[in-house]
Amino acid sequence: MDRRSFLKNSAMGGTAAAAATLAAPAYAQGRRTLTLVTTWGRGLAGVHDSAQYCADMITQATDGALTIDLKAAGELVGAFEVFDAVSSGQADMYHGADYYFVGQHPGFAFFTAVPFGMTAQELQNWYYWMGGKELHHELGEIFNLKSFLAGNTGAQAGGWFKNEINGPEDFNGLKFRMPGLGGQALGRLGASVQNIPGAEVYQALSSGAIDGTEWIGPWADEKAGFQEITQIYYTSGFHEPGAGLSLATNLDVWNELSDAHKAVIENVSAAAHSINLSQFMAENGSALERLQSSGVTVREFPDSVWDAFGEAAQEVLAENMDDELYARIHDSAMDSMRKSSGWIARSSGVYTAQRDRVLG
Amino acid sequence: MDRRSFLKNSAMGGTAAAAATLAAPAYAQGRRTLTLVTTWGRGLAGVHDSAQYCADMITQATDGALTIDLKAAGELVGAFEVFDAVSSGQADMYHGADYYFVGQHPGFAFFTAVPFGMTAQELQNWYYWMGGKELHHELGEIFNLKSFLAGNTGAQAGGWFKNEINGPEDFNGLKFRMPGLGGQALGRLGASVQNIPGAEVYQALSSGAIDGTEWIGPWADEKAGFQEITQIYYTSGFHEPGAGLSLATNLDVWNELSDAHKAVIENVSAAAHSINLSQFMAENGSALERLQSSGVTVREFPDSVWDAFGEAAQEVLAENMDDELYARIHDSAMDSMRKSSGWIARSSGVYTAQRDRVLG
Repeated sequence: MDRRSFLKNSAMGGTAAAAATLAAPAYAQGRRTLTLVTTWGRGLAGVHDSAQYCADMITQATDGALTIDLKAAGELVGAFEVFDAVSSGQADMYHGADYYFVGQHPGFAFFTAVPFGMTAQELQNWYYWMGGKELHHELGEIFNLKSFLAGNTGAQAGGWFKNEINGPEDFNGLKFRMPGLGGQALGRLGASVQNIPGAEVYQALSSGAIDGTEWIGPWADEKAGFQEITQIYYTSGFHEPGAGLSLATNLDVWNELSDAHKAVIENVSAAAHSINLSQFMAENGSALERLQSSGVTVREFPDSVWDAFGEAAQEVLAENMDDELYARIHDSAMDSMRKSSGWIARSSGVYTAQRDRVLG
Repeated sequence: MDRRSFLKNSAMGGTAAAAATLAAPAYAQGRRTLTLVTTWGRGLAGVHDSAQYCADMITQATDGALTIDLKAAGELVGAFEVFDAVSSGQADMYHGADYYFVGQHPGFAFFTAVPFGMTAQELQNWYYWMGGKELHHELGEIFNLKSFLAGNTGAQAGGWFKNEINGPEDFNGLKFRMPGLGGQALGRLGASVQNIPGAEVYQALSSGAIDGTEWIGPWADEKAGFQEITQIYYTSGFHEPGAGLSLATNLDVWNELSDAHKAVIENVSAAAHSINLSQFMAENGSALERLQSSGVTVREFPDSVWDAFGEAAQEVLAENMDDELYARIHDSAMDSMRKSSGWIARSSGVYTAQRDRVLG
């Protein structure tokens, strides 16, 4: 569904408009309620937490002058409808993964993750210091949005399979859930790729509508319960090496905010990015141990599969280079990745290798 | 100088008291000026920037209700006097590296970095989700402080030497600048270790008061100009694998703040941590290339040196275990490091190795 047909047809539009009307009296008293819709089912581990952190902290840091009312996926609009809802002003803000919206513009992929792209640390280097944030704003403003990174899952796991993957040919004909440009790359290996909101993946896997899925990593995947359905889990994946989450505000709403409230939103977003990334990193190790204890087989993709992933990813990344803004975002991101990855390898990379060697 | 003698004798105390008096009228109008002292010379690359970010963003996000007046090292108190100044209430806040204050309590080392300890990401995992922040507060409150992580340099470089280091014996008798427990470990290799504030290191190295120094990493070191004096640079070091910087507020001042202002300080601090870390990561690669182009020889320590570092570090870390709080901080940090480092290696570690292999 494109933006215009959404605005014309969505039954949800009426609900959002009603909510905005109800909020008006609070605004008149100098307190404004902003509706935050999300791409996450209520309670989805880590990702919903990050949206809730933003809502709570913006409310607290403004002493309620901005009171953020979080509506999880399906409570006001569906997971994939949040972009159009906020773009049109039916809701005030969304928290979600921008690569769900590559149909609106393929450049959005870079503000979540692209296959063979940046880790979470490399993403932050680009975003805050090497032009990423400015490009996020330039892209968002086309759609009447002001967006900031506000969460990160870290490098995502390869996902859940019914059979082991021994070569790239094993993806041929596989019905697999994977969003964004990673999903497009997997499609080039012959997979039948589907994009399904997080809250609906368990049902799709359980019913056989899909053969396998990636979601996030051991902790969030365990909470989602995929180990109840399949028992083969691949750890490191190629598709989302550091998936950023965004907090986007309707640009008309943003422009009405005071400089103080803008600073609160921007700083809470940056705090949420770091704190959310740490949450996944703090939880994943223990969760992987629990999954293994419960009988899950943990694997890594063989080199032949990584080679095929790499080739497909390069093809997909090159596909939209005739779009001037996509090309600028692509070039800026890839240039930044090359520049910052070397020092990371040379500093913390060498250090952790020596630490592990010496401490055993 | 201990806290009591500082309070009794410091000529700076009078200046701070005068500043507090001058700030009073602004407070009476509902705007409060808080004096922020730092351990950084004005303009020191990255570290001063992070303090300035905190000052500017707290001021902006509170619409000036809290106006932060940054006084760099030496402008109100000396670099290493900030702890006592804020503890006693002569200044309201400090921004600095807490390991400068291991003399006050050795547990402070863990909130900057300890040798063979956590990377910046592992520090965040511990701090936000595995008990680190609560221990930082428990420790700070003994000294009348409320502290938050508010900056990070990433894994620091081994530093600047006049001669190459071919084995641990080459540290014997070397006059070297290195603070914290890392410095204590280097002392066990026979080095004459000195703790010198950042703004004074160039002069000490230039005059021959020290033979060599570590400071931060290529970008900050280049700005400090050490390449003008020595030409041998070691990249990965053992002493500060992810050095956190802290923003500490006098606890009496903190307790008077509204919940909204507390939330602003906490979120700005977390944002500063991530944005500052990214700044170093974004700048270090290009700076290292410039240093190499200008004739600096870049080296890595051999395994025999890492082995000696590791042994010395373990001895130093074990030294204060009879202090109950130190032992709890130590055990919490090391347990967290073990739990979160495995997943990082298995996810982004495997990913970046495959990315580098496939993309070449």
